[in-house]
Amino acid sequence: MELSRANRALLRSLYTRHGRKKSGCCVVEGPRAVSELIAAAPGSIRFLVHTGDVPPGVDAPCIPVTESEFHELSGTIHGQGILAVAQSPAFVPAGEPADDPYLFALDRVADPGNFGTICRTARAAGLRELWITEGTADPYGDKALRSGLGSQFAMRIRFFSDLNALRQAADAIGYGPVWLTDPHTGTSLYAEPDLYRRSVVVIGSEGGGVADLAQAPRVTIPMPGNFESLNAAQAATIFLFESVRRRETPAISQ
Amino acid sequence: MELSRANRALLRSLYTRHGRKKSGCCVVEGPRAVSELIAAAPGSIRFLVHTGDVPPGVDAPCIPVTESEFHELSGTIHGQGILAVAQSPAFVPAGEPADDPYLFALDRVADPGNFGTICRTARAAGLRELWITEGTADPYGDKALRSGLGSQFAMRIRFFSDLNALRQAADAIGYGPVWLTDPHTGTSLYAEPDLYRRSVVVIGSEGGGVADLAQAPRVTIPMPGNFESLNAAQAATIFLFESVRRRETPAISQ
Repeated sequence: MELSRANRALLRSLYTRHGRKKSGCCVVEGPRAVSELIAAAPGSIRFLVHTGDVPPGVDAPCIPVTESEFHELSGTIHGQGILAVAQSPAFVPAGEPADDPYLFALDRVADPGNFGTICRTARAAGLRELWITEGTADPYGDKALRSGLGSQFAMRIRFFSDLNALRQAADAIGYGPVWLTDPHTGTSLYAEPDLYRRSVVVIGSEGGGVADLAQAPRVTIPMPGNFESLNAAQAATIFLFESVRRRETPAISQ
Repeated sequence: MELSRANRALLRSLYTRHGRKKSGCCVVEGPRAVSELIAAAPGSIRFLVHTGDVPPGVDAPCIPVTESEFHELSGTIHGQGILAVAQSPAFVPAGEPADDPYLFALDRVADPGNFGTICRTARAAGLRELWITEGTADPYGDKALRSGLGSQFAMRIRFFSDLNALRQAADAIGYGPVWLTDPHTGTSLYAEPDLYRRSVVVIGSEGGGVADLAQAPRVTIPMPGNFESLNAAQAATIFLFESVRRRETPAISQ
């Protein structure tokens, strides 16, 4: 089987936001991300392009190509021998109930690499939900999927116009308050016992920090080195794994 | 004052490893990284190129250029209006005493973005030392300095051929054991009370994980989501800030 001209054009278009919007598809690159896609949403796969073996569980056309053809098709300099074109998942409706102990949210985290890293880390920390506001990187962009290793397909991502809308939706399904993480002021995350009790923890944008939200409490990461604020993905990681620590060591602290 | 042809060629060469090695210099881009350089090593600055204001404390030629000239000179697409060419600091000799409560080490962390992020996070966590093995990204490469925001200049970086040499040097100044962080096996970092007591904590390479080192104990990050291992920079961040948490909350836990 050969890659049709139409599919070649579709694949190419998925490296732009416009192309993804037009087709509703995304490109998933590399064996680890493709495995995650196959496990979480096998029915969404349109076709797969590969230079070597194909993992089991794919019920879509698998098109073998040479290394040099693959190199030409792939968005990365070091192509990893496999990519899939899939329909992008729809965002989860705001009103659906959630199971996570707390909700983790990103407010206008625009860098796709940061988004992907945070998504992957949230998944590793055992969360299922990831809530985002407008201005956050496209979860199904090629870069976000590469840094996220396809973890996006395992997460229930919900999209909101802004933090107010996000707070309303959280409140409606029994989550609150909304904690704004702040690089400079607020309670220390290590000293706030209720931080992860059916609350919402919001990581702010790389440049502008967290938005203002009336009456929202603030929580901060103590920084002995007194340096520039942490990168958004590093701050997110610290918040995500402080919750893991509390679950893992209930007797020692809370 | 104009940028001489020789300095223009020097600047251009600093975007390659070969060029940096030849001249012993590095390029520091953006206002935050340049501020860190001025604070930590003002004497090392050869010259500075800028489109706007120059921060105080610079005792080297400051060459004003237009936005378009700057764009042409700078390594980033979105140049930030200021860059400095400086002599790269020498690595700190292995035998010098250290003050940090524990030593943090990177074993062949080759990605410059990861290196810079980890360096910046270590600085924010209050450490002064950063020990690295051969195969780790050049601390003074342009990308590493960009992600590190110049934090490299505030850190005492020591270089070793491998983990054995690193362990010997640590032992000689009273640090040990060497803890290997492992994505899969070992004691949980949350359950190991002595983890940060004059020990060495080693983060392994992105691809190959941590090297084998005879008799070195292993420590791991519990991962409820059971996903792929974390990115090296995320794992480093969790280890660095678990030590911050213990210092900040001595009464609650270790």
